[in-house]
This record gives sequence, C-alpha cells and structure tokens, in this order.
Amino acid sequence: MLRRFVSNSHAKKIAGNSTLKASSGLQTPARHLKASSIAIKRAYAAKQPPKLTSETYSYVKRDEKYKKLTPADIEALKAIIGTKGSIITDDIPSDLDFYNEDWMRKYKGQSKLVLKPTTTEQVSEIVKYCNQENLAVVPQGGNTGLVGGSVPVFDEIILSVANLNKIRSFDSVSGILKCDAGVILETADTYIKENGNYIFPLDLGAKGSCHVGGVVATNAGGLRLLRYGSLHGSVLGLEVVLPNGEIMNSMHSLRKDNTGYDLKQLFIGSEGTIGIITAVSILCPPRPQAFNVSFLGVESYEMVQKVFQKAKNELGEVLSAFEFMDNKSLKLTKEHITSPEPLEGEHPFYVLIETSGSNAEHDSAKLEAFLESAFENELILDGTVSSNESEFKNLWSWREMIPEASAVGGGVYKYDVSLPLKELYSLVEAVNERLEAAGLSSDTDASKPVISAIGYGHVGDGNLHLNVSVRTYSKEVEQCLEPFVYEFVSGKHGSVSAEHGLGFQKKNYIGYTKSDQEVKMIKQLKSIYDPKGILNPYKYV
Amino acid sequence: MLRRFVSNSHAKKIAGNSTLKASSGLQTPARHLKASSIAIKRAYAAKQPPKLTSETYSYVKRDEKYKKLTPADIEALKAIIGTKGSIITDDIPSDLDFYNEDWMRKYKGQSKLVLKPTTTEQVSEIVKYCNQENLAVVPQGGNTGLVGGSVPVFDEIILSVANLNKIRSFDSVSGILKCDAGVILETADTYIKENGNYIFPLDLGAKGSCHVGGVVATNAGGLRLLRYGSLHGSVLGLEVVLPNGEIMNSMHSLRKDNTGYDLKQLFIGSEGTIGIITAVSILCPPRPQAFNVSFLGVESYEMVQKVFQKAKNELGEVLSAFEFMDNKSLKLTKEHITSPEPLEGEHPFYVLIETSGSNAEHDSAKLEAFLESAFENELILDGTVSSNESEFKNLWSWREMIPEASAVGGGVYKYDVSLPLKELYSLVEAVNERLEAAGLSSDTDASKPVISAIGYGHVGDGNLHLNVSVRTYSKEVEQCLEPFVYEFVSGKHGSVSAEHGLGFQKKNYIGYTKSDQEVKMIKQLKSIYDPKGILNPYKYV
Repeated sequence: MLRRFVSNSHAKKIAGNSTLKASSGLQTPARHLKASSIAIKRAYAAKQPPKLTSETYSYVKRDEKYKKLTPADIEALKAIIGTKGSIITDDIPSDLDFYNEDWMRKYKGQSKLVLKPTTTEQVSEIVKYCNQENLAVVPQGGNTGLVGGSVPVFDEIILSVANLNKIRSFDSVSGILKCDAGVILETADTYIKENGNYIFPLDLGAKGSCHVGGVVATNAGGLRLLRYGSLHGSVLGLEVVLPNGEIMNSMHSLRKDNTGYDLKQLFIGSEGTIGIITAVSILCPPRPQAFNVSFLGVESYEMVQKVFQKAKNELGEVLSAFEFMDNKSLKLTKEHITSPEPLEGEHPFYVLIETSGSNAEHDSAKLEAFLESAFENELILDGTVSSNESEFKNLWSWREMIPEASAVGGGVYKYDVSLPLKELYSLVEAVNERLEAAGLSSDTDASKPVISAIGYGHVGDGNLHLNVSVRTYSKEVEQCLEPFVYEFVSGKHGSVSAEHGLGFQKKNYIGYTKSDQEVKMIKQLKSIYDPKGILNPYKYV
Repeated sequence: MLRRFVSNSHAKKIAGNSTLKASSGLQTPARHLKASSIAIKRAYAAKQPPKLTSETYSYVKRDEKYKKLTPADIEALKAIIGTKGSIITDDIPSDLDFYNEDWMRKYKGQSKLVLKPTTTEQVSEIVKYCNQENLAVVPQGGNTGLVGGSVPVFDEIILSVANLNKIRSFDSVSGILKCDAGVILETADTYIKENGNYIFPLDLGAKGSCHVGGVVATNAGGLRLLRYGSLHGSVLGLEVVLPNGEIMNSMHSLRKDNTGYDLKQLFIGSEGTIGIITAVSILCPPRPQAFNVSFLGVESYEMVQKVFQKAKNELGEVLSAFEFMDNKSLKLTKEHITSPEPLEGEHPFYVLIETSGSNAEHDSAKLEAFLESAFENELILDGTVSSNESEFKNLWSWREMIPEASAVGGGVYKYDVSLPLKELYSLVEAVNERLEAAGLSSDTDASKPVISAIGYGHVGDGNLHLNVSVRTYSKEVEQCLEPFVYEFVSGKHGSVSAEHGLGFQKKNYIGYTKSDQEVKMIKQLKSIYDPKGILNPYKYV
C-alpha cells in the first residue's frame, strides 16, 4: 500500500530517490525559504510609505499628560547615553523613518528621537529620566511586529535595544543561552548551532531581523511551538528595566526554581507595556539531525483532525510541524507559484507534516509506517514524502505562499485566531456562508468584491489563519466580517490574537478574548508598574 | 564493544533476554515503585505525631489582626457550603488532624474548621466572607507538600479543594484536559490514558494523593520535567478564586493566546498565597509506547556531564530521565536494599538513563548505539540496559532508595537545590571538605556525628539532592551546614528550593535566591491581591 501511496506522488517522482537516508548537516530549508522571503519583503511589505497613524486613526488623540521633548531633555539623555551614533534626532528626518514606520507600512509615528543604549544601566537611566519628566517611550526590537506595537503613535521617544547585542554566555552542557535582548534571533541560533549543535526553541520567518528580546516581549509563537512549546516554558530568566528605571534581574541558569512568584512570566508577551526586556536566559534543545516532510490530500476537516491525532500518537516525539490548508488555499496558491504541484489530484483539504529527530532512518521509518497505515485506514487520499532539501522547499512553499497568493486578486482581510481544534475550521465555513448570503462573494463573478474566504494554519497549535481574499476593499465587506469574526471567536472561547499580540491594531479587541475580570487585572498591573503610563502608550493597555 | 558492554552487565544476565522488543501497555514501573513507596509512607512519614508548630517555632506569633473564629462565623460559612459532610469542626478533634498535620509530621496547626466546598462559587463566597471578617484561610490540596505550606500554623480555616474533583472535559484530539483542582493526579493520568492514550505531563511519587490543583499551585517538578518541561509551559488556563472572592477564569483550550499579560502564570507556584486554584486546563502529550532504562558507571562528575551532553544530542527526543548519584549514595543504598546490584564493580559516579518513545525498536537502537559509542569513547566504564519491567524496577530502585538509605544510619539533613550544571556536584565536595575540616565526619569512626554527605538527583534539571547522613542530629553539625549550604547556593546563583517551594520551612531563605528587587516585587503583588493577608499567612510572603 505504501508503494501505491508513494508511486502516486509527484514529488517523489521528482526526487527520484526512494531511499530515505540520513541528511547530516541538513538545515530546515523551509525556514530558509521563509527567512529569505521575509528578507526580500523586509525592504518594505508595501510600496507606499504609510500615512501618519494620527491621520489614519484620527480619533486617537495625543495624551497631553506627556511632556513634549525639549532641547534640555535631549541634552540630558545625551549625557546618559554618551556615545556617538547611539542617538538619532531629526537633524535628518528620514533617518527616523525606519524606527517610526512598522514593517507592514500600516503605521507611522512622529518620534523625533531614537535612543540606542549600549548597556542595561543606560536603559535604566533613560527610563528613570523619562518617568520623572513624563516623557513617553516606545521600546523597540527588530521592529518586525505585525500589529503596530513597536512604533510610536505620536511623538514618543523610541528606545531601540539594537545595541544591546552581545551573547553573554552559552553552556554547551545544559543548553542554556544568556544573551542581550538585541541579539538577532538568527545570530543566536547560529551561535548555539556552532557551539554544541543546539537549536533556538523558536523559529520565525523574520528571524534574520527580529530580536531575541522582541520575540520574548511579544511571546512569539512561530514554527517550532508544536515541538518545543511556548516561551513561558523555555525562558528561564529575564533582565527587565521597569518603568521607574529599576532593574529586575532573574537571569538564572536554573531549570527549576520554586522560590516565590515567577515574576518574569509577566513580561513574556507584555509587549513592552510594563518593562523593557534587556536580556534573556533561555533553555535550548539539541538540534535535530534529520528532517522529513510529507504533503497529504485529505477528505474533510474531520479527517484532518484524525490524521493529526494519529500523527501525534505514532510520530510522537519526532513530529515537528502539522499544518493544514483548504482546497481554495491551494487553488489560489497555484495561480501564483511555479513549483511542481505536490499532488496530482485535487482534494478538499491538505496537510503538511514535518518530522525532525536524532536519527534519519528511524524518523523515515516512523513516518512511512504512519503514512502507510493512514492510507490503509482511508484517513488520507493521497500523499508524498521527502527528505531531500530541494523537495522540502517545494512542499513547504505550497504552504508558505498562501498568504501572498491570497492577496493577489486585489487584497486580503487577515485574521490570526486560536480556536478549539474541533471548531477551528468552522469559522471559515461560517464566514463563507455569511459572505455568500450577503451576495458579496463569488469565485468567478468579477462584479463581487470577495473571491473567497480561505483557511489554513498550524493545526498543531489550534491556530487558524483566516484570509478573506478580495478583488477590492469595501466597507460592506468589512462590516460583514467585523465584528462577526471576533464575536464568533469569542463565542467559541478562542483568541482574537493567537501569536501576533494586540499592539495598536487590536487594542480594542482584548475584550473578545479576555474576560472583564482579566482585563481589570491587566489594567491593574499596568497601573502598578507604570502609574504614569510612560511605556508604550496608546497600545492595548 | 557493545557486546562486551552488555555482557558485563549483571542486570542483562538477569533479564536473560538480549532482544529489545516493543512493550505495549507497559507502564513506567519506576513510577509505580515510587507511588507505592509513597503510599506506604502516606500513613505517616514519621511515627511520632508532630508537636504544634507554634511550640516548635515559638518565635512565630499569631497575628492578632486575624479574627478568632466565632459560632456566628461557622453558621455563616455553613450557610454558604450547605451540604453535610463538607464541614469538619472540632466536635471530634481528631477528625481535624489529617488537615492540621503535614505529611512529614513536622508541622501541626490548630485549625478548628475545615471547609470542603463542592463548587467554585462556594469557594468564592467563603473567601469573600473570610476577607470581610479578617479570617485567615489556608488552601489545601492533597496535603503532600514537603515544606509545611499546606497546613495552618495557628487557627487558620482550612479550605480543602478535595470535593472539587470532577474531570470537566478531555479533548482526545488536542490532548487538552480540563479538570477541577481537587482531582487526584493519578486519577487524571488514568483518565487521559484510557481516553486517547495520553499522559499527564508531570509525574510525582505522591501521585496517588496529590491534586492537580496542588501540583500547579506549587509548580511541582517531578520526574518528567526533563521531557515535558515545566508547568509554566503546559498549563493553558486556570480558574482561580482571588483573596477578595473574585473569580479569574482563563480556562481556555488554546495553545496560543497573545492577548495581554499571561495572568495565570502568577498563580503557578504561588503556593496559595494570592489565590486558590479551583480548576486547571492543561496540555497533555501522547503516552509513550516503549521504555528503556540503562544504569552506567562513570569515572568523574565531569564525565557525568559529558555523558549527559552526548545523551541529549544522540537520544534527543526519546530521553526522558537522566539521574546521577555518587559512589557513597550507592554504597549507602547497598546496605538497605536486597535487589541485585546493577553493576559488578564500583565506580565513582553512576548514571541512570531512561528513554521513552513511540517505537521500542528505534528507542533501543538509539540507546544501544549511544552506549556503544560512549563506551568506546571511554565516557562510561561499565553499564547495563533493560527494557523489561522487573529489571526497570530494580534499576530504578537503586536510585529511588537513596533518600531512605541515607537516613538509616541515624538521621539525615536534606537539601533540595538547583545549581548551574557545571557546579552541581561542587556543593557536595564543599560540604564534605567542610565537615571533615571540622572533624565531624567519618565513614567508619562511630564517634563522629556525620557519616557522609552524599549527592544525587536530576542532572537533566540541574537539581541536586544533597543528603548529609548522620549518626545523630547535633547543633554543631547543623551550624556547620547552615547557612553555609544556602550561602554556597546563593554564591553560584542557584535556587535554595528547586522543586519543593518555600512554604513555612524555607520562609526565611527566599533572599538567598531572589534579589531584593524580586522580593520587593513579590511582596508588592501579595499586598495588591491580598491586602489583608488572609490567604496562607505565616508562609514565605
């Protein structure tokens, strides 16, 4: 049966190699693919420079409790930070653009001052000064966020941690890395790879730009969450400058420490609103030696869940990704991609499974046994498998290109939500029904604004990406979608932000996921740590 | 080389079976061993009933800000809790003993009232009433803690969550379990085993008695931490009654939720001082299908670390335990145990490695290849390996019996600390040097109070158990050990409580691990959530 399964596979034919061998030294190409595709975009996600946030969202007003920056302030801050090159002022306004604009070019602040301190003590002194003087501050890492959380809204001072960029230590026995917040994720990953063959327990498309401190401050999810869990488990300690300038240092090398409340947890995912992370201590797992990718055709979302359950049980410890996409996602991608199709026929759903482990032969044997049994039990209709680097790239590209493909027809409304697994896909169905009932949607009729709502994402994490692909943006479509999508997610006790955070974009939507009690407690903590509200104002708290 | 390695092995001879096969349905016998040994002890760890804590620690005084319980209070609380059998008063004083005494019989409170509510709302009403009336409350789970955290010191009301004992839901696709706080750990584990072959991501000797809520409230570590990580990563949501009676509900089924501060993290490990956990949502991994255990002789602690590093890299995803013990640990155990010795010769250090995974053959092949290479590279001197249940028990017993064996000579001073891996064993060496320099220690001279300091523990977690085995307790020995041990741990930036928490026993030692800044922040949070200090007073915060 496996033979039939394999022989059906287009990818397998291309690979021309039915023996799955150890691929020592092989790096996850999918990650490379993502990194490079982001790298290209990083120049700018959009061609047009953004309008000022204060113009786009004119109902948001500058809070006059914040002092306006004076020449005396700049002198005082210069005295703290000292070194030439660590301050950017509006002598050449365009120098400020990179820091004022977000990566998507949706938001643009009007900061006149960027500070790039080189020590934690400088960060502390700066924040202490700003607190005393009621000067608002936006902490900034690699500025790759997707919700406008890392750029100012008005004239907040930007405090970039880019110059806090040293690896402090790496213990190649325990796998514990300690580094400054401004170390680039890829730099950290490369360092620990070269010093003991470890892997950073988180991977992101933006890894060539984003900072270790930034991923912790935003509790980034990324591609390895299914395997390595959340940062709340892997971060062992933090160094944080509080809004009053005090430094909280819990930079332990300890996996276990049960002496009082785990304070660092509060700052993981706080998006720079109650403290500035200046250093991170994190536990890194050994780097896998082997990777396999399989691409499968599946009959229904119910079957997707069954395949997932089976994969968890049978692939267990080597399962490192379980992604799904619907038929329309693949169809849209097909119009945009030149790579050979992974499967010959068409299927209602597709699944991409990645394994990674310490023994290539074992992993391949597990995956093939799993696939054979899944095929015999009619859980999957067709599939292909590869442990070859170029094949990886191709298979992953069919998943990775969906976001771009969904915008090609004109535009896209994007939602990034968590839902209980059973109900993950029901949102896509509900949205399509709603759009059709409103007469707004057609695959073929070009007079309709919406092409289709498509669904894909990290099944393993319960994280759905709902993309509503449109021919043109329209208020009618937007009103059909919102607040419907948020209400739907709220009704299923899901999260309106699975991995991107709230930042500025979703500042008003926290109540769809968090209860009044939780929102009250979040605001309470904000008021305790930052009573003057100087850190990252106008955002979600 | 493997043959020589294996043929040297006593255990292998006993097993009489050189083929490593899948052991479907096999449960981790080491866990069973522990559970049963605890079950025996649970009747009481010590024979003598404890003295009142207020007598043993006469310098701790009852805080007169707390009201003394009145008949009117009991009536009011009865009105909330209603059901017969949910209240225990001092009608029969001995009925209160189980709740007033800790498992070790080191502490005994004087509570006159135990409440066992059956709903979260009742917990809320009780706490609200007690807050209004300044009545102190001790939350209690299975009462298996080791630091006196779960029993009253004076006349605090005991709020037991034992009657909150329902499994709320289990999703066999996602592996997410939601249950009341009072569900016994083993009950939860059995339930998810039978409903989808999952495993609770934490295991403890006390699993037959301890509660799910209690392990979360104390951030218990246990035997699976190396494999499944800390509860901060696996707990997805909590329901918590705050000291003012408000209910914080974050009982999500979401692996990813980036909407504001992760409030639940504060309550994980808070030891009932800022809230009472009434329910837990937790992500459970698939249950491994196969287990292997290997017992190795190693030349030095440096080699132990090298073996650990190699095991992490080569066993990677199937490594589930890495325990070490020194020569003296094994020697002491030998006097106490009738099981056949795992190895024929004597070695300076011993290592126990457990693998568990989804494929018995693969796991065995990985382990054997690892052992062969470790042997050829002279990292290990001798060793044995087994995938047979009775052999498991024997091999694990040589590790598990150390705590009891170290007390056989008369008594034992126990320390449970985290240290950076490189320096883990240096504490044992330092303590032995110190005891010898003071002329207090001899293996053979029965006139000396100390037999020896021995070291063993979870290398994989950086968690050392230092046991100072004595012929007799003496003030001189105690003064030689304390505060030296805490200062040593503090000097290496370790933790004075790796997994047991602080409770009452270590209430004065938090400053050896946490900085002044952290202690200040912990006290600040306590004062915000519990301004009247009604929850679990006289403990570490």
